Amino acid sequence: MNQDIQKSIDRLRSGDPRALARAISTVENRSAGWSDLLKALFPHTGKARVIGLTGAPGSGKSTLVDRLAKHYRKENQTVGIIAVDPTSPYTGGAILGDRIRMQDHYSDPGIFIRSMATRGSLGGLARATADAATVLDASGRDLVMIETVGVGQDEVDIVRLADVTIVILVPGMGDDVQTIKAGIMEIADIFVINKCDREGAERVEREVRAMQSLATRNDCWTPPIVKTVASEGVGTEKLAEAITDYEAYLKKENLVFKKNVENWQERLVEMLRDAMLEKARARMDGGSLERYAAEIAEHKRDPYSLVEEIVRGAERN
Amino acid sequence: MNQDIQKSIDRLRSGDPRALARAISTVENRSAGWSDLLKALFPHTGKARVIGLTGAPGSGKSTLVDRLAKHYRKENQTVGIIAVDPTSPYTGGAILGDRIRMQDHYSDPGIFIRSMATRGSLGGLARATADAATVLDASGRDLVMIETVGVGQDEVDIVRLADVTIVILVPGMGDDVQTIKAGIMEIADIFVINKCDREGAERVEREVRAMQSLATRNDCWTPPIVKTVASEGVGTEKLAEAITDYEAYLKKENLVFKKNVENWQERLVEMLRDAMLEKARARMDGGSLERYAAEIAEHKRDPYSLVEEIVRGAERN
Repeated sequence: MNQDIQKSIDRLRSGDPRALARAISTVENRSAGWSDLLKALFPHTGKARVIGLTGAPGSGKSTLVDRLAKHYRKENQTVGIIAVDPTSPYTGGAILGDRIRMQDHYSDPGIFIRSMATRGSLGGLARATADAATVLDASGRDLVMIETVGVGQDEVDIVRLADVTIVILVPGMGDDVQTIKAGIMEIADIFVINKCDREGAERVEREVRAMQSLATRNDCWTPPIVKTVASEGVGTEKLAEAITDYEAYLKKENLVFKKNVENWQERLVEMLRDAMLEKARARMDGGSLERYAAEIAEHKRDPYSLVEEIVRGAERN
Repeated sequence: MNQDIQKSIDRLRSGDPRALARAISTVENRSAGWSDLLKALFPHTGKARVIGLTGAPGSGKSTLVDRLAKHYRKENQTVGIIAVDPTSPYTGGAILGDRIRMQDHYSDPGIFIRSMATRGSLGGLARATADAATVLDASGRDLVMIETVGVGQDEVDIVRLADVTIVILVPGMGDDVQTIKAGIMEIADIFVINKCDREGAERVEREVRAMQSLATRNDCWTPPIVKTVASEGVGTEKLAEAITDYEAYLKKENLVFKKNVENWQERLVEMLRDAMLEKARARMDGGSLERYAAEIAEHKRDPYSLVEEIVRGAERN
């Protein structure tokens, strides 16, 4: 192994937040050595508990994650948080709020927070998040929390990588909240009704119960509903208990390995897709991509035959 | 060309809704002949106006799309609507509401509504939506409207395919609505403030204006803000005018072709990614994917080296 890589892994595993931040940037941006770094880190992975939290904008995800982080810190566990931001596809900027939140925890090196922003379509957010979680896991963090807005397919893919998936609902989000719930119903291992002191909390609970009676999980776990008021710290302990319960269930039923295999199947497909795309793009520099697009826009060429040609070309190379 | 394909294209172009529904299903599900069908349809495309509408759940997208559809029907234009649903990654079911809405319009063959559901990660929603829009365009519909929840990256990718992108905001969606707006700020050609009779409409307008003063478009268009109450039909005419204005601007500045080329660049990359992935998967049947995933879960093998091996293998084949 490269000596530089060994050095940065040693510093990473000693808990140095700067080494951690640098390693995540390397894999996120696919900077030089990213692949060797991940290969070298892989043997150190598989120890962290990975918890995914998702909910609509305004559901109080960040506050809840903060509360959980502080709860686990009291138990002397080290925590890594990945906050996935919906960001502009053009500017790639991250949300200010999380940057501020990051500084808030800066005094405690036991909590490491990282905002992930979209980097265009190549690679994608799910891939970057999975790799960042791998780095945090390898660094020896006891707990990795992944927090994301739960509406798009991207976000669903992201939280599915977690061992425990928590879906956060809030009362009074309007009628269309049903569409969100329908989309993420099956991925929830635990439901949280946050801001449960608001009117309508019972209605949300009834709706979740009604949907649970229709949905079929392929195991025997019935996702519990935990009520919280994250802004006041109400319900954090109960949520932590629910997480422990589900982890115990997974262990008891020998589902940990099965879940791991399923997750890796999905990640492999994602990784393959990215790697193959890179290969295809390598055959087609920026200039010719634009020329092809212009020919299609002029209707001189149909895109479906073109793609077949390029893929066939990639076979021969 | 295959005679069956020619026949279905003839029926499609005569306006037959059943032929249309069948053709969209063929390309959406990648059923036998999908590629030949798209190749044969391509010469007939490029005539429809494609309008994308996006907004948070509860912003009244569907109602606004209905109003617009009825407006254009009065002008004797034929309309195709693609409603993109956030759906379960497991069951793949679509939202009931849209199914009901579809029947509502059934009496008018001049309006064709199609719900698109997520079909897992292979291919993806953006690809399926783009192909469905291609079919509607080729069928001779004057106008194609694509309606989607505007939070995830997927959805942003989808509306970017449109010639005109409309972002729908509503007053009083809570503090975190900022995160949605920040993510889709730059893709809006027109802003709609729907439910503008609610308290807070002026605040939303001020926020949009404030953000516009920070954002930079790479053209000279300032996206107008149109206020509507879609449930009562208020503002529909003004929105239609704003759409026509923007189309006129694109034409005047010779931006139509440029936008087309940009769109095709992105679509080509997506299509390439899918095609290359299919190729990689073909080398790795379901059985070996599971075996590989198990080896990774057991830490017998690292996934990064494995993917490199498979991609290299694909080169030789």
